[in-house]
Amino acid sequence: MTDSNAPRTFVLTLGCPDRTGIVAAISGFIAEIGGWITEAAYHSDATSGWFFTRQAVRADSVQLPIDEIRARFAAVAAELGPATDWRLTDTGETKSVVLLVSKDSHCLTDLLSRAERGELPAQISAVVGNHLDLEPLTTRFGVPFHHVSFPAGDPDGKTAAFEQLRQIVDTHAPEAIVLARFMQILPPDLCAAWQGRAINIHHSFLPSFIGARPYHQAFDRGVKLIGATCHYVTADLDAGPIIEQDVGRISHEQTPTDMVRQGRDIETLVLSRGVRWHLEDRVLVHGRKTVVFA
Amino acid sequence: MTDSNAPRTFVLTLGCPDRTGIVAAISGFIAEIGGWITEAAYHSDATSGWFFTRQAVRADSVQLPIDEIRARFAAVAAELGPATDWRLTDTGETKSVVLLVSKDSHCLTDLLSRAERGELPAQISAVVGNHLDLEPLTTRFGVPFHHVSFPAGDPDGKTAAFEQLRQIVDTHAPEAIVLARFMQILPPDLCAAWQGRAINIHHSFLPSFIGARPYHQAFDRGVKLIGATCHYVTADLDAGPIIEQDVGRISHEQTPTDMVRQGRDIETLVLSRGVRWHLEDRVLVHGRKTVVFA
Amino acid sequence: MTDSNAPRTFVLTLGCPDRTGIVAAISGFIAEIGGWITEAAYHSDATSGWFFTRQAVRADSVQLPIDEIRARFAAVAAELGPATDWRLTDTGETKSVVLLVSKDSHCLTDLLSRAERGELPAQISAVVGNHLDLEPLTTRFGVPFHHVSFPAGDPDGKTAAFEQLRQIVDTHAPEAIVLARFMQILPPDLCAAWQGRAINIHHSFLPSFIGARPYHQAFDRGVKLIGATCHYVTADLDAGPIIEQDVGRISHEQTPTDMVRQGRDIETLVLSRGVRWHLEDRVLVHGRKTVVFA
Amino acid sequence: MTDSNAPRTFVLTLGCPDRTGIVAAISGFIAEIGGWITEAAYHSDATSGWFFTRQAVRADSVQLPIDEIRARFAAVAAELGPATDWRLTDTGETKSVVLLVSKDSHCLTDLLSRAERGELPAQISAVVGNHLDLEPLTTRFGVPFHHVSFPAGDPDGKTAAFEQLRQIVDTHAPEAIVLARFMQILPPDLCAAWQGRAINIHHSFLPSFIGARPYHQAFDRGVKLIGATCHYVTADLDAGPIIEQDVGRISHEQTPTDMVRQGRDIETLVLSRGVRWHLEDRVLVHGRKTVVFA
Repeated sequence: MTDSNAPRTFVLTLGCPDRTGIVAAISGFIAEIGGWITEAAYHSDATSGWFFTRQAVRADSVQLPIDEIRARFAAVAAELGPATDWRLTDTGETKSVVLLVSKDSHCLTDLLSRAERGELPAQISAVVGNHLDLEPLTTRFGVPFHHVSFPAGDPDGKTAAFEQLRQIVDTHAPEAIVLARFMQILPPDLCAAWQGRAINIHHSFLPSFIGARPYHQAFDRGVKLIGATCHYVTADLDAGPIIEQDVGRISHEQTPTDMVRQGRDIETLVLSRGVRWHLEDRVLVHGRKTVVFA
Repeated sequence: MTDSNAPRTFVLTLGCPDRTGIVAAISGFIAEIGGWITEAAYHSDATSGWFFTRQAVRADSVQLPIDEIRARFAAVAAELGPATDWRLTDTGETKSVVLLVSKDSHCLTDLLSRAERGELPAQISAVVGNHLDLEPLTTRFGVPFHHVSFPAGDPDGKTAAFEQLRQIVDTHAPEAIVLARFMQILPPDLCAAWQGRAINIHHSFLPSFIGARPYHQAFDRGVKLIGATCHYVTADLDAGPIIEQDVGRISHEQTPTDMVRQGRDIETLVLSRGVRWHLEDRVLVHGRKTVVFA
Repeated sequence: MTDSNAPRTFVLTLGCPDRTGIVAAISGFIAEIGGWITEAAYHSDATSGWFFTRQAVRADSVQLPIDEIRARFAAVAAELGPATDWRLTDTGETKSVVLLVSKDSHCLTDLLSRAERGELPAQISAVVGNHLDLEPLTTRFGVPFHHVSFPAGDPDGKTAAFEQLRQIVDTHAPEAIVLARFMQILPPDLCAAWQGRAINIHHSFLPSFIGARPYHQAFDRGVKLIGATCHYVTADLDAGPIIEQDVGRISHEQTPTDMVRQGRDIETLVLSRGVRWHLEDRVLVHGRKTVVFA
Repeated sequence: MTDSNAPRTFVLTLGCPDRTGIVAAISGFIAEIGGWITEAAYHSDATSGWFFTRQAVRADSVQLPIDEIRARFAAVAAELGPATDWRLTDTGETKSVVLLVSKDSHCLTDLLSRAERGELPAQISAVVGNHLDLEPLTTRFGVPFHHVSFPAGDPDGKTAAFEQLRQIVDTHAPEAIVLARFMQILPPDLCAAWQGRAINIHHSFLPSFIGARPYHQAFDRGVKLIGATCHYVTADLDAGPIIEQDVGRISHEQTPTDMVRQGRDIETLVLSRGVRWHLEDRVLVHGRKTVVFA
């Protein structure tokens, strides 16, 4: 359901310890199989001594099936060392996304609309809410809505609810689990199970204003810009690898209520960019940080 | 030395508890003395219940001397309650600014250049450095440079140095004491003496990355924007009322060294805006926050 | 359907030839009727010699009905001269908006969503499309959709279609007629009839790239930023008074197709801001230009 | 005089008709000579069918002298076709820049300051002014100033003046001739002689507001953002390939005089970025457009 004008491509992402000859090895391999490179990005991180690349190759330029390419490339990767982390995906294979929501509709509407008009290279398979408020909006877009209740002050009930959530989500084997203003904190086991796939939007310019009511914190501090942060979820609250951030200017005239409204537009854009880049395999995680080949 | 095209104006700033009729009282007074208002800004803060205004009146529209206007307006202000805080200044009177510097030249060069080409409504009376590095640059612009040495690890020596600094600065009765990348922390007594006049530039988007080496902190956290903050100095480090902030986009490609370079441009602009607004009486402080009628 | 936290207010907007005493006259009147001013903005335009103001007064602070206030204020306005143009509205009265669309859904979805969650102080009464594509999306939000066919190459048919459009629109006496990527050029008589109420979004940073396919024009010229412009519709194509503009950064990597996608986000935000400001009586038109008290 | 922390590198830039195997050929060559790639950027332009790359290699990773590398690489380039355009430079060789100025000091001060503190990988060899105003500022920075008078209304005198200008400039064989708010239009023969090296800053967001007094044009049109454009000079006024652009927000409150002041900051930043990128061999020109590997 992605942009039908975009030609089908194979996307290779790779991270490995840096040394000379890596680009030659990879591009030599691609040339050998006749691959026409349409996008290529590289990054050498001097601090960590790590090398990163993303390459997009027109699928119609290569005669081999993707599994064969993967098998052959494994040998190239092996030469780059045992720590090498790589992946080869096919934009022709539909990816699945599951959204987690609570009561705020702005990110949900935006992602459903983008998916519907082909801006996201994925299908939204399901929406799970801990409230029923967003069921009507979701079903209008023809997407199934699941309600999971999280009983306040009942640890066992919460544990059961998260287990139920996990089962619904895992059914779809999603490429991304997007916390689109989902107001429950994922337990460590879910953070671990969904590592590198669970994406959150926090409504502040992290690391400022971690936790609850960040716009009220921003108002109290008197900052002149407010922001939003899209990041991978980790067990360490609001501290996962950052994918994207943006800010908007405010002044003394904005109340916290005004900031909430203005902030919605920033959150919406930042989350949509982060999710799209993730789905297009543009985000490579290394430790607490990301390389984003946007 | 300000823009010679700008007509001379009287600038009134006022803060008081909010209630009905304040604007009528002030504008009635201005109309009564024949004042032609060229700029008028108002702000009602619902949270604090405080009212703020700034009004600029063409000096040539009023026949009274400024002291007479002040004397008459005192009666209006008195009616607005004992907490009323107001000020009436004349853009025809030259304001004095003192700059405090260490080794980084970008903010110093920028402020000296702006003052020289008439962009700041003030004269830079002196530059004080805790190193000698910036003496040649300063004197090129015809501004006196004073060197005050701050001996590391010698508390008594430091106290004496701050006393020497205070004397040099206070000689000029400056409207603003600008810490243009000055790398010494002002002691509480100087913070108190210069309250509302000492302006600092911090090279991060506060409240993120307080203290030392903020670009390295930003690099380690993997943020996607870096920023700078211009704020009034208080005894609470990097926590004074914020005047202005701005940010610039970075990516995985920037090293801390790149951030330092890119950050200079942000620091320079943010500080110059903050200083100009302060000198134009556009910044009203209330508690930990500012109202900026930019 | 607007933000239920916002208290009901009376909004006064006024433009008149500048002179001394205007603010005193207006604020004196407001104080006299006991009005509590929550927002006040003023602008003196030295070039045109015109004065502009917008004032918001809490409705519950005034005991008079709005018609009585209007009647009394007419006397104040009369003293400000015969060219004085003023208006007093009540945020408690629901405003109506009609949207005109073609095939692109992004602005439509955005405006329907904002209206639904109470971000626009108005009700979207109807959507009129010259194609049927957007009917399902519109009706999902419970808004009536009207299809008006504009036969290509048939001047009489087009004239009839515009007449049909006018009748549908005028039924709702809308406060705003929003051309949300409507791909027909309004004839001069409709521009005249809807003057100051018809709002368009053009997908370039005007005055660059007037007319068709602006992103392709931008690509050919090799600009480094693309933009969008929200403006009032006049008979002079893409030359009406500008309400709002914004831009986004592009690089050599963006194809025209990428720009179209990226541009949608800019168009959406710029149009939504322009429409909201118009509905909140924040936009005052004077000649070819606007004063926006945002 | 560039950043002493930056290691010496060889920079290869290349443009050629796109086809498979180019990256493999280039990176194979670099691997062969033992080159450690620190930066690599690629761009395939589908519209023009052209391929662009820029690669930075640590000088200390290669044992060959640069002339030997050039000689060997010529064979690789030859295989990429006769239209291939390439260049190999050494950041250890100091580049020369000449600045052309009139009366406005902001861009001049900025470039002199950046060069002095090592932010530009070049030496400013000379400043040429058609007025004497900026001589004192220039000489303060230890840079020679040349005055060339352009007699108004005297075509022969102007021709002679441009000839004098050409001789002064060409003496330095500069890598860049920067028109830092130089208010004379270069004649076609100079545009041709300095093609790809003459860089101008225009004080509008081109293609809007070509020619004289762009801020006044912007004021009259009522735009909400003003901008600046850094571009290569061609015989077609303000229409050369764009290197960089940026904008700043304005409102109804800004007069043309305010825009001139605010615009200076935008012009300064945009020009400094454009010049730095040019000097770092990050700008590849193709037809009327640029690829900027920033």
